[in-house]
Amino acid sequence: MTVENLSSNKSFGGWNKQYSHQSTSLNCAMRFAIYLPPQASNGQKVPVLYWLSGLTCSDENFMHKAGAQRLAAELGMAIVAPDTSPRGRDVADDEGYDLGQGAGFYVNATQAPWNKHYQMYDYIVHELPALIESMFPVTDKRSIAGHSMGGHGALVIALRNSAAYQSVSAYSPISNPINCPWGKKAFTAYLGRDTSVWSDYDASTLMRNASEGNGLSFVPALVSQGEADDFLVEQLKPEMLQAAAKASGYPLVLESHEGYDHSYFFIASFMEQHLKFHAEYLKSN
Amino acid sequence: MTVENLSSNKSFGGWNKQYSHQSTSLNCAMRFAIYLPPQASNGQKVPVLYWLSGLTCSDENFMHKAGAQRLAAELGMAIVAPDTSPRGRDVADDEGYDLGQGAGFYVNATQAPWNKHYQMYDYIVHELPALIESMFPVTDKRSIAGHSMGGHGALVIALRNSAAYQSVSAYSPISNPINCPWGKKAFTAYLGRDTSVWSDYDASTLMRNASEGNGLSFVPALVSQGEADDFLVEQLKPEMLQAAAKASGYPLVLESHEGYDHSYFFIASFMEQHLKFHAEYLKSN
Repeated sequence: MTVENLSSNKSFGGWNKQYSHQSTSLNCAMRFAIYLPPQASNGQKVPVLYWLSGLTCSDENFMHKAGAQRLAAELGMAIVAPDTSPRGRDVADDEGYDLGQGAGFYVNATQAPWNKHYQMYDYIVHELPALIESMFPVTDKRSIAGHSMGGHGALVIALRNSAAYQSVSAYSPISNPINCPWGKKAFTAYLGRDTSVWSDYDASTLMRNASEGNGLSFVPALVSQGEADDFLVEQLKPEMLQAAAKASGYPLVLESHEGYDHSYFFIASFMEQHLKFHAEYLKSN
Repeated sequence: MTVENLSSNKSFGGWNKQYSHQSTSLNCAMRFAIYLPPQASNGQKVPVLYWLSGLTCSDENFMHKAGAQRLAAELGMAIVAPDTSPRGRDVADDEGYDLGQGAGFYVNATQAPWNKHYQMYDYIVHELPALIESMFPVTDKRSIAGHSMGGHGALVIALRNSAAYQSVSAYSPISNPINCPWGKKAFTAYLGRDTSVWSDYDASTLMRNASEGNGLSFVPALVSQGEADDFLVEQLKPEMLQAAAKASGYPLVLESHEGYDHSYFFIASFMEQHLKFHAEYLKSN
């Protein structure tokens, strides 16, 4: 396994680094970024927050714009930001910004030509954490968060793997992709026209069907939504997630923020709340 | 005077906005960004920090990457980030990233073809503050800061207009442009081959010749420099600024930071220190 360090920038006493590696799940070279807080340089193992970005983003947007490193340094938490899809000239793509490269939707594609590379669910759930835990001074405590398409990914992954994550949070998630244009377009391409299989990747369906017991607990969940978000009504549908939580008794905290939009200005404004939320669960377990 | 609002994003309870206006100094349309903290929406007038960016930057880099809004909201301070040069198809340019558009060096050009538009010194010192103070709920208290080429600009402007600024700070400034490749190239083009006029735009020369008295005071100055900065030895030369301050008794605080480079990861890491430094002087006057 070859892993190449592409960049290292000191940040708030820790290090912001980018790596490239050959992904077996995705069958191509993949880039990810990691922030290692100062504690990780001082012989201490730190827990990891995985951040899943939205449409068109790479591993860089969050690390450049979210203002997360200050808090990760203070809280003693690593943050890993993967790319949002497989990439490369040999990887299937589409002219739209909402399908193909930059738009993996965190699913395992079953349909040609997408199924050759677009296995983002397996990459995020299995391959990437195994790589991170083998390479860096981190514990096996993980939380997961994301924005928009990445908020959808974070919720779906936490809901389907509740033993593997201490907490989940999302900004402006695509809460009910089986019922919105972005989700229908992507799921038709990646998963096919048989909509019965789509619900495995629908946060509202998964939260509606979630239950505790048999050794499993609800993963604590925080969702933040801007009320001036241009995508709120047509694409995001947080009310569907809220209704699902009510139906199953899921302890979802969904907060609505007047005046905020879909941008990183919104994400940065509530980063302290999100990272402190995760830190509470990452440390107490 | 037509001023067009290009964007508005809520950020930490305040507003991050971009505007376009026709600049009389620069003889072209110019864009700037402003962060207005929550206090400015609550009927309060706030002081202004002007931020001058480095080579290749626009009005956006600082607002997206520095993590300054959180602190500006807390401290009740507006921040204005102008573009780094005149722009447009009719504006002279050069193939290099370090001359022409994106590289105005905050001087008033005297040489053709640059002198038609490249009057960034006048724009930053006179036109932009007058516009800001006419448009927004701000006081006439100003401080100025910048990075690299913008650190040079901030120091030069504060040293030459000590009555107009409460404080100045710089990250990784081009401290002695008359003696480094970036400065020599730009000053030859913009100011001509007669090097005797260059020293009006050289922070080390100006600081060496600075004096108090006759109603003028030294502008408090903070400079931060990363020790792993690739441009440190050849282009930045902070030791020249340090020697100048020693010679004139200028109260310069120059801090050197192990491991940090020239990037926004460095800038963000010390933003709290810089903004609190400015807030102290903006509020006490």
